[in-house]
Amino acid sequence: MTPYTHKIQYYETDKMGLTHHSNYVRFMEEARIDFFEKLGFPYHEFEARGIASPVVNIHCDFKKPTTYPDVISVLVSVKECKKLKFTLSYTMKKGEMVVCLGESTHCFLNGEGRPVPFTLYPDFYETMLKESAKTGSSEENK
Amino acid sequence: MTPYTHKIQYYETDKMGLTHHSNYVRFMEEARIDFFEKLGFPYHEFEARGIASPVVNIHCDFKKPTTYPDVISVLVSVKECKKLKFTLSYTMKKGEMVVCLGESTHCFLNGEGRPVPFTLYPDFYETMLKESAKTGSSEENK
Amino acid sequence: MTPYTHKIQYYETDKMGLTHHSNYVRFMEEARIDFFEKLGFPYHEFEARGIASPVVNIHCDFKKPTTYPDVISVLVSVKECKKLKFTLSYTMKKGEMVVCLGESTHCFLNGEGRPVPFTLYPDFYETMLKESAKTGSSEENK
Amino acid sequence: MTPYTHKIQYYETDKMGLTHHSNYVRFMEEARIDFFEKLGFPYHEFEARGIASPVVNIHCDFKKPTTYPDVISVLVSVKECKKLKFTLSYTMKKGEMVVCLGESTHCFLNGEGRPVPFTLYPDFYETMLKESAKTGSSEENK
Repeated sequence: MTPYTHKIQYYETDKMGLTHHSNYVRFMEEARIDFFEKLGFPYHEFEARGIASPVVNIHCDFKKPTTYPDVISVLVSVKECKKLKFTLSYTMKKGEMVVCLGESTHCFLNGEGRPVPFTLYPDFYETMLKESAKTGSSEENK
Repeated sequence: MTPYTHKIQYYETDKMGLTHHSNYVRFMEEARIDFFEKLGFPYHEFEARGIASPVVNIHCDFKKPTTYPDVISVLVSVKECKKLKFTLSYTMKKGEMVVCLGESTHCFLNGEGRPVPFTLYPDFYETMLKESAKTGSSEENK
Repeated sequence: MTPYTHKIQYYETDKMGLTHHSNYVRFMEEARIDFFEKLGFPYHEFEARGIASPVVNIHCDFKKPTTYPDVISVLVSVKECKKLKFTLSYTMKKGEMVVCLGESTHCFLNGEGRPVPFTLYPDFYETMLKESAKTGSSEENK
Repeated sequence: MTPYTHKIQYYETDKMGLTHHSNYVRFMEEARIDFFEKLGFPYHEFEARGIASPVVNIHCDFKKPTTYPDVISVLVSVKECKKLKFTLSYTMKKGEMVVCLGESTHCFLNGEGRPVPFTLYPDFYETMLKESAKTGSSEENK
């Protein structure tokens, strides 16, 4: 899958002259949305069905600084997919240089705020398991 | 009325070393919300009644730069209040020095996206007319 | 010139369900940077020469709401170019529908914070006059 | 030490109706700056001496959602302080309810981008060790 690209904007820099670290969390969201679109599961379609997909946790390791007008690529992979939550990994690069490594965990909630097992969306769940088999671990292969 | 104060945060600066101009639009929103709370009309109470209050237009004149860790004060006044829209003025200062002058115009929309005349909320409308009489012009005094 | 495009991100929406108005000011910056790159004058090259180009004022008329995952196009044109400041116009559309009209005025400052006349950068100034002749007014043609 | 408080702003919410997760990373920065000010080491004084203090990594566990106009408190503590990096913990609460737990690790860099041991700033280092003794582990007490 082609990595997502994001051009660092002037408003994303801070007075240190560098991309403010909080923005990488936003690049992860941009790349995640793009990733699910490319997999055929646009996030807004889940929303349209009344499913919210909140972020359970995030982690970022900042390796190298970036700044305007750098272009960074974000490669997303499924680290793990269980029945109630999945974890994505993000490798952000400027050219060949890794600038940030990220992770985020997500679940599905219905309109009442209750967890929804991904098995209710078998196409989605199968795809996630297939993706996680490429790179990480899944409930199936443990 | 006491002006609203906002401490410039590191993440609000840019690589020029200054507060990024887009953030003043956010300070205006912070001050506006504070202004209506102090007047006794918290914005979230309008929301709870199904009223949305979108921004019709904004204007900012940037007079002097600010940066972290400056503290700016924002004085809000009602420039004009008509039946379907009102305009607020914002004077942002660092100490005695004006750093930005802003204006924003707003209306009320109901759940169907239709304009709601402020006269439906007579307490609010009366207060706004009173505020606008202090500083600006209103439908009444034209 | 091809308009700049921006896909509305989830983090750019607010609890009204729409793109938060402050972000249009950021889209204007994105489109402005893209515009100057396409004209052959990347903003970072001015910065490298010690020139800062602060925003003197901004104006936005919000015409129609947008939201994630809308894609908007931003067409930039030079409304006016004088020796010490220039004004850009922005037409933001979702498909054929105008969603926001913006304007911003800019100047050049040197390292001491003093205004720099654009005539010091004749290639830039000529290009700006030519662009302004297409759509707006300039010092030359008044 | 009194916890830092942050009122959730409208522009910090997203179309899910909740505070966008990326903003908690910004609240951590706000609280961190406040924490160091209260300890007597304002961040801008380090900057004035040519020291940059980049974020090495961040982690957030999102426990409960918040939204406008919630007020959250952020309690900062020093989890660990070694000679070249320190880790802070953040407990964010809405009333008595924990809404987010965060961690961030930081180092000091000089103008050439080289790590600066905190022992060069003995007052700072001593204070950090004392703070870490309250709650966490430090190089000294291992």
